[in-house]
Amino acid sequence: MLLKDLREQVLKANLELVHAGLVLYTFGNASGIDRKEGLVAIKPSGVPYETMQPSDIVLTDMDGKVVEGNLKPSSDLDTHIILYKRLPAIGGVVHTHSTYATSWAQAGRPIPAFGTTHADYFRGPVPVTDPLTDEEINGDYVLNTGLAICRLFDRRDGLDPMATPAALVAGHAPFTWGPTPADAAHTAVVLETVARMAILSLSINPECAGVSKALLDRHYFRKHGPKATYGQN
Amino acid sequence: MLLKDLREQVLKANLELVHAGLVLYTFGNASGIDRKEGLVAIKPSGVPYETMQPSDIVLTDMDGKVVEGNLKPSSDLDTHIILYKRLPAIGGVVHTHSTYATSWAQAGRPIPAFGTTHADYFRGPVPVTDPLTDEEINGDYVLNTGLAICRLFDRRDGLDPMATPAALVAGHAPFTWGPTPADAAHTAVVLETVARMAILSLSINPECAGVSKALLDRHYFRKHGPKATYGQN
Amino acid sequence: MLLKDLREQVLKANLELVHAGLVLYTFGNASGIDRKEGLVAIKPSGVPYETMQPSDIVLTDMDGKVVEGNLKPSSDLDTHIILYKRLPAIGGVVHTHSTYATSWAQAGRPIPAFGTTHADYFRGPVPVTDPLTDEEINGDYVLNTGLAICRLFDRRDGLDPMATPAALVAGHAPFTWGPTPADAAHTAVVLETVARMAILSLSINPECAGVSKALLDRHYFRKHGPKATYGQN
Amino acid sequence: MLLKDLREQVLKANLELVHAGLVLYTFGNASGIDRKEGLVAIKPSGVPYETMQPSDIVLTDMDGKVVEGNLKPSSDLDTHIILYKRLPAIGGVVHTHSTYATSWAQAGRPIPAFGTTHADYFRGPVPVTDPLTDEEINGDYVLNTGLAICRLFDRRDGLDPMATPAALVAGHAPFTWGPTPADAAHTAVVLETVARMAILSLSINPECAGVSKALLDRHYFRKHGPKATYGQN
Repeated sequence: MLLKDLREQVLKANLELVHAGLVLYTFGNASGIDRKEGLVAIKPSGVPYETMQPSDIVLTDMDGKVVEGNLKPSSDLDTHIILYKRLPAIGGVVHTHSTYATSWAQAGRPIPAFGTTHADYFRGPVPVTDPLTDEEINGDYVLNTGLAICRLFDRRDGLDPMATPAALVAGHAPFTWGPTPADAAHTAVVLETVARMAILSLSINPECAGVSKALLDRHYFRKHGPKATYGQN
Repeated sequence: MLLKDLREQVLKANLELVHAGLVLYTFGNASGIDRKEGLVAIKPSGVPYETMQPSDIVLTDMDGKVVEGNLKPSSDLDTHIILYKRLPAIGGVVHTHSTYATSWAQAGRPIPAFGTTHADYFRGPVPVTDPLTDEEINGDYVLNTGLAICRLFDRRDGLDPMATPAALVAGHAPFTWGPTPADAAHTAVVLETVARMAILSLSINPECAGVSKALLDRHYFRKHGPKATYGQN
Repeated sequence: MLLKDLREQVLKANLELVHAGLVLYTFGNASGIDRKEGLVAIKPSGVPYETMQPSDIVLTDMDGKVVEGNLKPSSDLDTHIILYKRLPAIGGVVHTHSTYATSWAQAGRPIPAFGTTHADYFRGPVPVTDPLTDEEINGDYVLNTGLAICRLFDRRDGLDPMATPAALVAGHAPFTWGPTPADAAHTAVVLETVARMAILSLSINPECAGVSKALLDRHYFRKHGPKATYGQN
Repeated sequence: MLLKDLREQVLKANLELVHAGLVLYTFGNASGIDRKEGLVAIKPSGVPYETMQPSDIVLTDMDGKVVEGNLKPSSDLDTHIILYKRLPAIGGVVHTHSTYATSWAQAGRPIPAFGTTHADYFRGPVPVTDPLTDEEINGDYVLNTGLAICRLFDRRDGLDPMATPAALVAGHAPFTWGPTPADAAHTAVVLETVARMAILSLSINPECAGVSKALLDRHYFRKHGPKATYGQN
């Protein structure tokens, strides 16, 4: 079995989504990449999580062709691959239909940075793509979903994908990414909590303003970069 | 014991509703049909799920007369039977009072198709019946509940019951159906999640517009029909 | 030990509240009455549910004097007793601070009859008392809480306490009652679900109208009275 | 190992936050103080709760210098210490990012005293600090967070920290305190429930007025002071 360790990481990231209550039935998928081999390991399509084994994780090349595995890869594979191509520093991608983050995606609104919980993980609002056009939907839909995310990086004052490792696809659901599959899954779980608190904050105070740039930076750099003070490292 | 396999399927579908948190006490009921024998298998009325056995499932004919079983069938039996009569392609029906879908039914509003989670299962809004008239309520109430659902299929631009296998009864709660009892239960569980996200999306953005026809069709046909690409088949 | 069976019923009703997620820490209390002996059995005050035994349940007379038990009775005892005095047909009373029903009590609004789930248990809105006056609060507060509930029964078109076995105390929380402690606890659990769905229905449709009188009666008499059709009796 | 008993109390308080569902991953922290020794025991930074041992709890002096322990203390240590310095009667401090209380903090609104559940623990609204200025954020941020809380005590008609043992830091999250670490954790759990019911009450009735001063005092003194009647003492 090729890339046993990566397969196990990917399986574990998928199960973390289940454990955190982010998935219903077979919804959602996590993947990882081996940059040296140029291979992506991803959850199979529509297979129950309960019995999933490392050998069920599908290995594909960077064109989405299955290299090892008897199962079909997640139908969202092409979105994962375009993110790996565009973001050379990432090692894992996660997609869920988690309740609160998906509700923001359906509402077509970015998740505002209302507090330090958000700022600890995302250095600004979590953006939402433009709705896909009929041409994009009727064409290479899954790839176009990924391209819609990538366009967020290109906007003037757009998303810095390493500082804010998440995006919402309009009318669809969130994607997150990170150095490893575990990081991407962890971020997906925090995103769901942040999305939930943002709805509640708006319900209490519709004029809710969000945190200052100073607080955003303070918390972000508390957990990231050479001056990080959080944790045991 | 007649139709042991069908009884077991029906019991399993009922327990799936419990497992997914859709029922309180003895609320809710699932049924299945054996078209060849012309027999319906349905949950008994007001019996706790914890100890329910296949032998507790009640068998009735298409007039609702008990054919085998010592218990009384679900008081909603006549609604199930009229759906089986009207929809020859279905093999299972489920009724729950699940929190979010029931809240939409109580509000008298269809659940809009706000995202791809919805589109994967329902090719348009999940409709709500007209409120029953006093005559319908004081008459053959349970049958009239079913007839109110069937009228949704007859409206111009009305519900295609095979493409959108769910309806809300105004002031009451949802019904779902499908090829098997397991499918109907699965759809009831997804409906609850979709109903929840729709409330949240509206709370974030009261002007929430819903997905385009193109996206609705794309997701629907991803999981249904000869060109389906989801899962391992 | 006097009234062992009643004590066990009362303990079981208290634990049902825990099991259904209606209580935090030592919040809430259930009681039962032995009409022949003129004795009330009630949860002790501030004792953890985890280790509660039938012998911890406190027996008092109808003046609230402890007859058997080493523990102090629930501080809400006098509210329970006045309900037993006023309603000779009931055998159990339950008080909780359950999240959704309490939120309606805090909002000072009756819970409207928005659907059949409500109508199966309550033949009309669940009413809320007037706020207690400063005199009532500074006087015999716990008794006055009970008297505020009883005044709901006396209003013209007021609460029929046997048809709608629940009330909200304004700025406080719900009380429910029934033929047995188990019935009162069951009603408290359903009330919480009904309270939750009512908030959600209003959030979907602020003009939500509620069910017709015909539907209210139909569902009420489906589960109550000589023509009841629900369940196995 | 110094102060084994205090370490165990602090560990237990931290685990109570997990048990009550108030923390995600390594969020949140509880501490305790030994006034005689002048030592604070606090959760280590970013360590998983699942495997935490009393020996992992970090001991520091009142300047935040580690006295015993191989791990780094919680990054919120300086906020805890300033509260211990300012409030000589307290023995425990808790900080969480619990969903509902944090949503009020993000909204920048005090939690109103809408009911007796609130009044049993807090003798008035739970206040929110002013947002920190850029200078405070870029300076000694964690200490300044604590000073912002302390300023609430100094306002005319300000917070009585012994009668209302909780505060919200604007754009951040809640802090609670009490005689022991267990009390501070218990208060954090109740605060979360009270915060949740306050949002729901507002959603039902945006004009929700809150309880009277008389009711606030009645419930507060039911659980506090020489005339307390709740519980077994």
